[in-house]
Amino acid sequence: MKKIDVCLSPEMVHLHKTEGKVVVVIDILRATSCMTTALANGIESITAVASLEECKALGEQGYLTAAERDGKKVDGFDLGNSPFSYQDESIKGKKIVVTTTNGTQAIVKSAGAREILVGSFLNFSTVVNYLRAQPNDVLMHCAGWKGKMNLEDTLFAGAVVDALKGDFSHDEDSVLTALNLYYSAKSDMIGFLSNSSHVRRLQGLGIMKDIEFCLTKDIYDVLPIMRDGKIVNAHLEKVVL
Amino acid sequence: MKKIDVCLSPEMVHLHKTEGKVVVVIDILRATSCMTTALANGIESITAVASLEECKALGEQGYLTAAERDGKKVDGFDLGNSPFSYQDESIKGKKIVVTTTNGTQAIVKSAGAREILVGSFLNFSTVVNYLRAQPNDVLMHCAGWKGKMNLEDTLFAGAVVDALKGDFSHDEDSVLTALNLYYSAKSDMIGFLSNSSHVRRLQGLGIMKDIEFCLTKDIYDVLPIMRDGKIVNAHLEKVVL
Repeated sequence: MKKIDVCLSPEMVHLHKTEGKVVVVIDILRATSCMTTALANGIESITAVASLEECKALGEQGYLTAAERDGKKVDGFDLGNSPFSYQDESIKGKKIVVTTTNGTQAIVKSAGAREILVGSFLNFSTVVNYLRAQPNDVLMHCAGWKGKMNLEDTLFAGAVVDALKGDFSHDEDSVLTALNLYYSAKSDMIGFLSNSSHVRRLQGLGIMKDIEFCLTKDIYDVLPIMRDGKIVNAHLEKVVL
Repeated sequence: MKKIDVCLSPEMVHLHKTEGKVVVVIDILRATSCMTTALANGIESITAVASLEECKALGEQGYLTAAERDGKKVDGFDLGNSPFSYQDESIKGKKIVVTTTNGTQAIVKSAGAREILVGSFLNFSTVVNYLRAQPNDVLMHCAGWKGKMNLEDTLFAGAVVDALKGDFSHDEDSVLTALNLYYSAKSDMIGFLSNSSHVRRLQGLGIMKDIEFCLTKDIYDVLPIMRDGKIVNAHLEKVVL
């Protein structure tokens, strides 16, 4: 049987093998929710970079730029880290370059994987169905917050493991922890997360609307996947090929 | 109000400050349970070292040697990692040098703390009462398994945080995760842990009796504390002073 594993933060990913696996990068609040939203709204590709300088450099080559640090949009860039910024008609067909506090690092540290996907509640079932249909082991890679684990990414990982019961086996305590958090949270995710460090941080920034949106399941049917350093929608790719 | 934090594995401890804090090292199965048992049975001091070589070298100076790797006693050393080995009259008054897969590393990586304690269910209330009475912030440092987190250390951390409600505040998601695991496990810890990676590993080694013992609360009233590189029973120390 295929195996599924959960890595609680990029700080731990060297302890989990990425080689040969499908790695799902998770940054629910809000990087991977934004990426999902952007691809669903017609963005052609997303390039994730580690630094503001790299982000600016690609901006000079015609990319839309998106930069977030500590939960806030960085001045001088086109877009921040609210999913609602990625629903505008004007972004259709454009390429975006993105740098964020955590999500970007998790993508960079997933190097070596057979495939890198981007997961969020917004495209939950699309990700689950793809993982079920493909033949490889899976690593759910939580972006966390500055190297530490967080609740929302871990419980998303738990939700995916739960949905894949019967198709995957697991033998790590991080998987049991993620499942346990998901079972505790699933009847009222916003309530469960209201004490989490990240939600308190974002509440301080006044973006409860973003949080509610990012916790909504199955709004979009897109499968964000890394191809040659860019994240694209694999569904469109199939149509093109 | 004093703060309490949980570090899920020594691999993450550089992200938590140890400076100025009381750090409680936790390796429930079985290093810190053994240390507690040893001090309760009259061992004078415990020296934790990283390598088998250092362990052997102190053995040549007259220390009892205890060495465990991958859950098994290492050949050529006096003691392994079963708490029952530390209940014999013959060990009374001796000094022990210990090296284990995980617990030792967590002790070594707690360097910089104001005080380093050793916690286990066996001396649960003694540790909790000490933490409540003293004035500093606390970091619960889970030893985990080879850098990854594990269930039993995390839920012990959660049990301590729960017992200290009202005396300490917290703001990290790792603390909420530990609390959540503890609330799920507390009515039947052995049942809850039966699927954990570590318990499955130890069951393979046929030591269910050790596991049941290590999950029993308040057998011993000892407070293991690091002094000049050695772990001693702080209660005896007070009597001597």
